[in-house]
Amino acid sequence: MTNDISPAQIQSGNRRALARAITLIESNRADHREQATALLDALRSPSGKPAKQALRIGLSGTPGVGKSTFIETFGLMLTNMGKRVAVLAVDPSSTRSGGSILGDKTRMDHLSRDPNAFIRPSPSQTHLGGVARRTREVVALCEAAGYDIVLIETVGVGQSETVVAQMSDLFILLLAPAGGDELQGVKRGIMEMADLILVNKADGDLKSAAMRTCADYAGALRLLRKRPQDPDGYPKAMTVSALQNDGLATAWTEMETLKNWRADHGFWATNRADQAQYWFEQEVRNALLAQLETDTARAAMKSLGASVARGDLPPNTAAQRLLTQLKTT
Amino acid sequence: MTNDISPAQIQSGNRRALARAITLIESNRADHREQATALLDALRSPSGKPAKQALRIGLSGTPGVGKSTFIETFGLMLTNMGKRVAVLAVDPSSTRSGGSILGDKTRMDHLSRDPNAFIRPSPSQTHLGGVARRTREVVALCEAAGYDIVLIETVGVGQSETVVAQMSDLFILLLAPAGGDELQGVKRGIMEMADLILVNKADGDLKSAAMRTCADYAGALRLLRKRPQDPDGYPKAMTVSALQNDGLATAWTEMETLKNWRADHGFWATNRADQAQYWFEQEVRNALLAQLETDTARAAMKSLGASVARGDLPPNTAAQRLLTQLKTT
Repeated sequence: MTNDISPAQIQSGNRRALARAITLIESNRADHREQATALLDALRSPSGKPAKQALRIGLSGTPGVGKSTFIETFGLMLTNMGKRVAVLAVDPSSTRSGGSILGDKTRMDHLSRDPNAFIRPSPSQTHLGGVARRTREVVALCEAAGYDIVLIETVGVGQSETVVAQMSDLFILLLAPAGGDELQGVKRGIMEMADLILVNKADGDLKSAAMRTCADYAGALRLLRKRPQDPDGYPKAMTVSALQNDGLATAWTEMETLKNWRADHGFWATNRADQAQYWFEQEVRNALLAQLETDTARAAMKSLGASVARGDLPPNTAAQRLLTQLKTT
Repeated sequence: MTNDISPAQIQSGNRRALARAITLIESNRADHREQATALLDALRSPSGKPAKQALRIGLSGTPGVGKSTFIETFGLMLTNMGKRVAVLAVDPSSTRSGGSILGDKTRMDHLSRDPNAFIRPSPSQTHLGGVARRTREVVALCEAAGYDIVLIETVGVGQSETVVAQMSDLFILLLAPAGGDELQGVKRGIMEMADLILVNKADGDLKSAAMRTCADYAGALRLLRKRPQDPDGYPKAMTVSALQNDGLATAWTEMETLKNWRADHGFWATNRADQAQYWFEQEVRNALLAQLETDTARAAMKSLGASVARGDLPPNTAAQRLLTQLKTT
């Protein structure tokens, strides 16, 4: 079904070919995996680098902050500027529920019908390592397909922010207005990854709460250690209203300012290089540990683990036996 | 130097033999490792289980909470009861500074001269996985040498608490009196591991602060989900003064109550079984990842990583090449 996707089709911006290539990437079948790798290799220029780099924007926000409305309004603003926008989702959760999943495009009704936008739901659930690799490959595909902006959405839980931040040029944290003690709800590690904090829903009754929340976060950002990749005054916290399309143009200007400053000062390139190296090391580790995921390994692990639990074997001896078994099979 | 340590010497409680066996365990030399494994195997009874189980107490506390004074006073109390006490340290930090390191026994002056006590400093610094294995083996040795109580000390930073909790029957969190916002200083995950929280320095000027801190933690403990391995009313928070030897007998009674209840209800045995299985799985993972620690692997990793950073190779392709190299060497 899929081995007739040509690199040229992807490069020409054929959306059906892109969608089918993503399906290939997401497949667990070995032959699909081979075809996907071949396609990705073919899409790399002779220098090994993609012909064109998209701006990769990671967007994190817990359910209820208005992520869908934000992406819809923000995406349409960008396509109206003549940009081509791809929206991808990373969601390591096992159930497809809540407002965070792009499974159904109706939550971005206008954007999904925009010819300059491409929306792709979260890949089928496997372990986060698998999701990460597939999403990175889909990002590379979207770059090859000529998209100017790739928006990678994640629900704000667990490790998925790190995964998304490690494949983004800019990392945006979307928040909702809240009480004064809300700061504690955002983990320090996530704050430290943010390039821009947007407090959404700054409209109607919530406007003053949004401004207070924004001031709290602006204060918290000032307390963080200055990062070399930021010009003075960044990272910033701002209020926006996705519902009223208020503040999104300013937010985009901020993103462009950051992006251009980093490109001019070499941080864009070093960030991409660091990320590539990070993913290389992750891939190696994941591949080594994947040896434990075969049926044979699982069975041996279970049986030796039971011996260890009964006290028949010490953990180290059992581990040695398992490793010997892995080598001989 | 060391291959003349007999299992009988260890079992008879010969402290010099024990100290030399620990040196063997801590050695990085391959022949020492073999001898250590042989010795540990010989010390297991024909059923595979140790002849006698010590009570393993994990003790976590940041520098400044009075850990040394606590161990000194608590240890002497136990040896005065006729118990034999071994004190070990787990410290993953690379520098030997601060009050947390047992490198010099003078900080437990009386206990170190007690014939019923055995104090061993933190093993030489390698990665935490290596420290964990060595410490587990030393704990097993101390059990075989007939110690009644093995106290495993850790400085309260990073992952070392998890390591210690996963090799302890009881996990004690030692704290100092502090202001009302101190609760945030202890990570929720560490609170959830604690079987007993002891607020030390409940003496002199700090006594009322210690009582307030203790009440705060008692309240926080009540908010945590009840664990099956706890009788009603546990985990508990209490004040102690190691300096004035106040409250330590009560703390010991609490530990014994918990220990006996768990033994009677099967949780002692299942906890040890779960821990053994946990360490088996960790050993397997560590051994697989240790393939990356050889000189050849490091060199290949560095060279391929540089290609990836330059954009000459995609991360996945580079990872595949590295794995092929690992297999053929």
